Amino acid sequence: MPRPITFLSDYGLADDFVGVCHAVMLRIAPDARIVDLTHGLDRHDVRTAAMVLRRALPFSAPGVHLAVVDPGVGATRRAIALRTTEEDRILVGPDNGLLSLAAQRFGGIAEVIDVGRSPHRLEPVSATFHGRDIFAPVTAHLAAGAELADAGDPIDADEIVRLDMPLAFQDEGELYAHAVGFDRFGNIMLDVEHAELTGSGFRLGHGVDVNGRAGMYATTFADVAAGELILYEDAYKTLALAVNRGSARELLGVERDDELRIRPR
Amino acid sequence: MPRPITFLSDYGLADDFVGVCHAVMLRIAPDARIVDLTHGLDRHDVRTAAMVLRRALPFSAPGVHLAVVDPGVGATRRAIALRTTEEDRILVGPDNGLLSLAAQRFGGIAEVIDVGRSPHRLEPVSATFHGRDIFAPVTAHLAAGAELADAGDPIDADEIVRLDMPLAFQDEGELYAHAVGFDRFGNIMLDVEHAELTGSGFRLGHGVDVNGRAGMYATTFADVAAGELILYEDAYKTLALAVNRGSARELLGVERDDELRIRPR
Amino acid sequence: MPRPITFLSDYGLADDFVGVCHAVMLRIAPDARIVDLTHGLDRHDVRTAAMVLRRALPFSAPGVHLAVVDPGVGATRRAIALRTTEEDRILVGPDNGLLSLAAQRFGGIAEVIDVGRSPHRLEPVSATFHGRDIFAPVTAHLAAGAELADAGDPIDADEIVRLDMPLAFQDEGELYAHAVGFDRFGNIMLDVEHAELTGSGFRLGHGVDVNGRAGMYATTFADVAAGELILYEDAYKTLALAVNRGSARELLGVERDDELRIRPR
Repeated sequence: MPRPITFLSDYGLADDFVGVCHAVMLRIAPDARIVDLTHGLDRHDVRTAAMVLRRALPFSAPGVHLAVVDPGVGATRRAIALRTTEEDRILVGPDNGLLSLAAQRFGGIAEVIDVGRSPHRLEPVSATFHGRDIFAPVTAHLAAGAELADAGDPIDADEIVRLDMPLAFQDEGELYAHAVGFDRFGNIMLDVEHAELTGSGFRLGHGVDVNGRAGMYATTFADVAAGELILYEDAYKTLALAVNRGSARELLGVERDDELRIRPR
Repeated sequence: MPRPITFLSDYGLADDFVGVCHAVMLRIAPDARIVDLTHGLDRHDVRTAAMVLRRALPFSAPGVHLAVVDPGVGATRRAIALRTTEEDRILVGPDNGLLSLAAQRFGGIAEVIDVGRSPHRLEPVSATFHGRDIFAPVTAHLAAGAELADAGDPIDADEIVRLDMPLAFQDEGELYAHAVGFDRFGNIMLDVEHAELTGSGFRLGHGVDVNGRAGMYATTFADVAAGELILYEDAYKTLALAVNRGSARELLGVERDDELRIRPR
Repeated sequence: MPRPITFLSDYGLADDFVGVCHAVMLRIAPDARIVDLTHGLDRHDVRTAAMVLRRALPFSAPGVHLAVVDPGVGATRRAIALRTTEEDRILVGPDNGLLSLAAQRFGGIAEVIDVGRSPHRLEPVSATFHGRDIFAPVTAHLAAGAELADAGDPIDADEIVRLDMPLAFQDEGELYAHAVGFDRFGNIMLDVEHAELTGSGFRLGHGVDVNGRAGMYATTFADVAAGELILYEDAYKTLALAVNRGSARELLGVERDDELRIRPR
């Protein structure tokens, strides 16, 4: 029985990129189960993809986790496969920070291999589709039982690219957070865990002020009327902003990494 | 061998909601087969989702059928799993009418369980993502062989929410139907089975008048020229309106539940 | 163990068409693995679908390859299943040219069957959804081991519909190619294999002129600055045009089959 595979990318489903990667993997590991976490990420948005991977993997069985958001394909960025310290998960993808947040979530990197010239790759490797030619076949061979050490050349974990993220902080009872991600409903993910609010002046069921707009610190959309803004713990225990049956992103007019100043009201 | 699973929702594929539900199910039932019926339904459109589920399930092997279109998530609506009288199908989802049309299609409800506090749920249950925390794990455990009665607390089938639907009728040879659904091609689904036209004045290959526009009562798009309107039996034996290589929805300018007055011409 | 199935269509994922075809196939062949190559093709664009199928299949294990892009459904076009001369692949779909390019790629047609009245079909066959009623069940039975000859009535391979394609040519050092396809990034696929440029005056790393616009003949996007046009070998060994982090289709303002006049600069 091969190890389970998850697959996340910005390839979209309009073209055959995702399908061809599936075909390549099943040709190598015909019994493997592949879960598509999502392929609808914004093109080249490495950071959002890294955050989605970090929050999704704890719900997946440990296995081989393929992720491809790869603006530098064909240039000098490395292709890597790494093993996490906890749970023995294997993460495969470009070395551009995409895998770094998920690796942290599982205790960091225990072992990392440069798979750019992996014996598992499909030759000739194209300049533009490493998902098919490198990442998918490496993933499938690892799922089928190949040793990580045999997938390429060992490198030092310290050399792996990490992501720079904005940093939320609290000051005099106000929260300065950032809009680090959006979903298709216009909900805004903040860079604050819900637990970090403990001991602050925020109280559930009471009002908040977000960049000058009135909202409610609440448990769920249904706590407010349609069109009302809420600050809430999202399904991943992160603080988020939403508008009941509307879009918080539009209401607040924010772009990625914009600061949001939030205080009790 | 686990029972087959089908999965339908309004989650879309842009985010990781669907993928994470798959991951949760396969973690519990690694050998289960999951068919995604569709995740492209309009957000919160419970009624269209209920109609799609009703028409799609007869083509699926009996199994565990997960459906999540859930505008009331986090509020007081119940989470349920029910067994149908015919074919022993199990339907899992929110108690907002979503499952009711499919249940009718298979002889009604033989048994229904409140799964809101199911022992199968993932703790802590989030306020906004019951697909992941309640419905997916309950579905997977039932597919893997758990007893329905052990999935939660029994409730009375009479308490389950049913849907209000518009009602077509015929009068003096005219058909008063309603636009109950649309597909992405702009085809309009009516609330009339094709068989109900029997004995009326409509004759295949002859003209019809739809809200004052000329069309043809035909078997297939190819029976008329591009741009022409047809009244036809769709693939689910329901009457529908279409424009050959065009959009009937745009041509007729109708919204959901609008009445369509159709007569022979 | 059933043969692997691939599935490509223009059904999109907004409706339940693809999901119902999966359900039908798994009901017949519960252990079959199905790879969705893509369902995002432009509606009724038989030729692009035929090109995508041709380039994707070599990456898939030989099996049963279902393709449905079917503007003539319900009219007189035939429904077919064919076996390729090389690799014993079975291709299933409408006889409108969709399968013809992939069949050529594997040595041509060894055997072809009219499956319009196949014993495997679901009765009653609808006028508009042959994917569900004919193609999916025929595919599943063939994957499960049914003989091709038993799937319908034999016909002559010479009667099968072929596609007309534009024809690129080189003259006095200039290349006259055509925009035969686009992907969602606005990259333009040309009707020229990269290998056909051999011996011409084009040199990697040097400038080219495309319909009067300056570009570069390069290996990968990263060879040029953002916004720059490149002529390159795509992942399928075909010549293509792209704009680094932009859209070549928009920059050049071309539609399908438009001629592109390309010369060294």
